[in-house]
Amino acid sequence: MEPVLEQLSEGECLRLISPGGVGRLAFSGRYGLTVFPVNYKVRNGSVIFLTAEYSPTGEDLRTGIPAAEYEVAFEVDSIDTLAREGWSVLIHGPAHHLDLLGEHAAAMETGVEPWAGGERDHAIRITPTRITGRRIRRMN
Amino acid sequence: MEPVLEQLSEGECLRLISPGGVGRLAFSGRYGLTVFPVNYKVRNGSVIFLTAEYSPTGEDLRTGIPAAEYEVAFEVDSIDTLAREGWSVLIHGPAHHLDLLGEHAAAMETGVEPWAGGERDHAIRITPTRITGRRIRRMN
Repeated sequence: MEPVLEQLSEGECLRLISPGGVGRLAFSGRYGLTVFPVNYKVRNGSVIFLTAEYSPTGEDLRTGIPAAEYEVAFEVDSIDTLAREGWSVLIHGPAHHLDLLGEHAAAMETGVEPWAGGERDHAIRITPTRITGRRIRRMN
Repeated sequence: MEPVLEQLSEGECLRLISPGGVGRLAFSGRYGLTVFPVNYKVRNGSVIFLTAEYSPTGEDLRTGIPAAEYEVAFEVDSIDTLAREGWSVLIHGPAHHLDLLGEHAAAMETGVEPWAGGERDHAIRITPTRITGRRIRRMN
């Protein structure tokens, strides 16, 4: 079966990632390009995840300038290794720290949980400035 | 159950990724930070995957200087969402294009297949300069 590679629309990408789950956060940090899995939820078209406030990640994602936000990428995929089909979505956007009480409360209401547990109650929101995705299907 | 976060040794990281499968290639490309899934194999401690020679990826991963190689990151994880346990490994290293016939033949002998299919017979090898990983377990 020949694989067919299809570009996905922004709407389709958002629909695919909207159930939440595990995605991979990528950014250029103190140790170079950093990529690791986080649990996420989607609320109003934005990706929300938790990290630890005083961790390398929590600190790397701050520019030090309150109004300036750090640009990150967020990847979500779903792959059926047996059928060799699947999709992947890549989001780009600023990492906004949900520091205000109201923002933080709204983030916690999504039910997002930190994958690593522990003192990871610092919420970060990525509002996409660009969404791209592709899907691979096999046809007869 | 309290989650326990454990840093993994280089040896343990290599052991975890050695069966091959799907990993995520990350690099700073023409569209900014780029992250997407690729099928990979491990041979002699290096990660090998296929891409299309004249694709944005194939071209972005060339510096234009034959002896200079592009630095990339490669992430592999395995997550049990029910048990909320799992591990992730992050590799940094130069993307070496297996352009020489002998190199290319050795890459194809690994049996690596392109996930997206099509004309993706251009092999790239990442020889790790740094390997880090972590595992999350839940204890009673």
